[in-house]
Amino acid sequence: MPYEFKAVRRVEFSDTDMAGIMHFSNFFRFMETAEHGFFRSLGLSIINDPAHPGIGWPRVRAECDYSAPLHFQDEVEIQLLVAEKKSKSLRYLFKFRRLTDPPIEAARGSVTVVCVTHGPHVKMKACAIPAAIAHLIDPAPAALLV
Amino acid sequence: MPYEFKAVRRVEFSDTDMAGIMHFSNFFRFMETAEHGFFRSLGLSIINDPAHPGIGWPRVRAECDYSAPLHFQDEVEIQLLVAEKKSKSLRYLFKFRRLTDPPIEAARGSVTVVCVTHGPHVKMKACAIPAAIAHLIDPAPAALLV
Amino acid sequence: MPYEFKAVRRVEFSDTDMAGIMHFSNFFRFMETAEHGFFRSLGLSIINDPAHPGIGWPRVRAECDYSAPLHFQDEVEIQLLVAEKKSKSLRYLFKFRRLTDPPIEAARGSVTVVCVTHGPHVKMKACAIPAAIAHLIDPAPAALLV
Amino acid sequence: MPYEFKAVRRVEFSDTDMAGIMHFSNFFRFMETAEHGFFRSLGLSIINDPAHPGIGWPRVRAECDYSAPLHFQDEVEIQLLVAEKKSKSLRYLFKFRRLTDPPIEAARGSVTVVCVTHGPHVKMKACAIPAAIAHLIDPAPAALLV
Repeated sequence: MPYEFKAVRRVEFSDTDMAGIMHFSNFFRFMETAEHGFFRSLGLSIINDPAHPGIGWPRVRAECDYSAPLHFQDEVEIQLLVAEKKSKSLRYLFKFRRLTDPPIEAARGSVTVVCVTHGPHVKMKACAIPAAIAHLIDPAPAALLV
Repeated sequence: MPYEFKAVRRVEFSDTDMAGIMHFSNFFRFMETAEHGFFRSLGLSIINDPAHPGIGWPRVRAECDYSAPLHFQDEVEIQLLVAEKKSKSLRYLFKFRRLTDPPIEAARGSVTVVCVTHGPHVKMKACAIPAAIAHLIDPAPAALLV
Repeated sequence: MPYEFKAVRRVEFSDTDMAGIMHFSNFFRFMETAEHGFFRSLGLSIINDPAHPGIGWPRVRAECDYSAPLHFQDEVEIQLLVAEKKSKSLRYLFKFRRLTDPPIEAARGSVTVVCVTHGPHVKMKACAIPAAIAHLIDPAPAALLV
Repeated sequence: MPYEFKAVRRVEFSDTDMAGIMHFSNFFRFMETAEHGFFRSLGLSIINDPAHPGIGWPRVRAECDYSAPLHFQDEVEIQLLVAEKKSKSLRYLFKFRRLTDPPIEAARGSVTVVCVTHGPHVKMKACAIPAAIAHLIDPAPAALLV
């Protein structure tokens, strides 16, 4: 399914804060884990991809709604879904599920990335997603995005 | 001005990532620096405030739009503005400015926090912002929020 | 083997810095991942263990020697070995191996923790490791520590 | 004094962990803040220094002894002292002082860095510290290192 990836991470002690729960900024690091796993699952690398030199994916927008806390040692599934696919950008939706029985949705996030060309002496500039990458990625069915 | 606070931080080496810029998750940590400085400026503490035991401020939503990268050693001003004040919640707007000449807006973020009561044996529950805190905080003039 | 534990982590993008490699401070977070996995493997928790309330394990010393860099997406094995077991403290040795073929030792670290009693109104104080914990942990054979 | 630098940082919420104190790995990030401030105070940059292209300072050893915890909002002074100056390497000593009245020493750390040449297509290799840098840095008097 070229529109979905599931990563699982355990909440580490260093991910928590003095409120006893995962710090809210770390949900964004966990989203990125799923994004980069998604790219690896497609045979791509988010950075320094030998088949796509000079292509980068800066973030232009990130957001997260928090519904339940994550605690130390919780196992959490981060489900990535391709929410939007445009010629020069992608928007991912991320659903966080605490892998308890039953699972509990802990948060829902979104990150928008733009495809750019860049280099040591080249100013970063938005560009069309290379066809070889674009054909690997589909938008998720609308039913999965609710 | 009980609706505004400006914090200044320098981008540390450990705030950067291999793309050579501040990692996008760290903008949220910088927002929190301004939020906590705002509370200190009002004589309050965001956690374990002796005058307000059992009151907490969990985040329910966070978002950020990125417009220019921040680099190692950049000095950045994070301007907090109280964008919304409700009976049980606050929404802050944050404007990031790279302190170059002229300054460059690098990002704009927002965090929504809810006032809760909690304790060792008390389930966390939304509550009205205590009057002693609420009267210290005003919403910013609309003209500042654009 | 109650003197050894192996954890495997992948280096995340957010673990890197602008030098393109894992930031040196993150090796200490990875050590802790192995330490906490070791405790879980013994049926213990490093914090808030229901069977051992009021027992904590603050670090008194940490060190690391770096021999090869870790890069984004590297898989790394962190081998914990119990290097010293005293009545009130433990010292762990950690060997980092990049899981390439052949594996490459990337770093070697050490953390010394002290067993303490603590509580909301109790000053932290070193104490003997509870017998129920101490009997689960052995020092590693000297041959493994070289 | 080309052998000393003092940085001051406030412990942020995101620097704490669920034990309620600054996470032990963050002391290393704070050491680096003092190291980079020291370089700035000499008119140098730890990375991408225009006057010294291709020179880097990877860490080969880091250590820290912890004597008192740091808490949220504590102001802490990190005093850097040049403990050793060799032809190809420097060792820094760091003293952490909680800026309470009276100040309390919270930790003492050390980082050893090696001067290297590196580049996009150049393997990293230890080299003599460039004379223009070496002449700016002195070892601290022994009396300050105790």
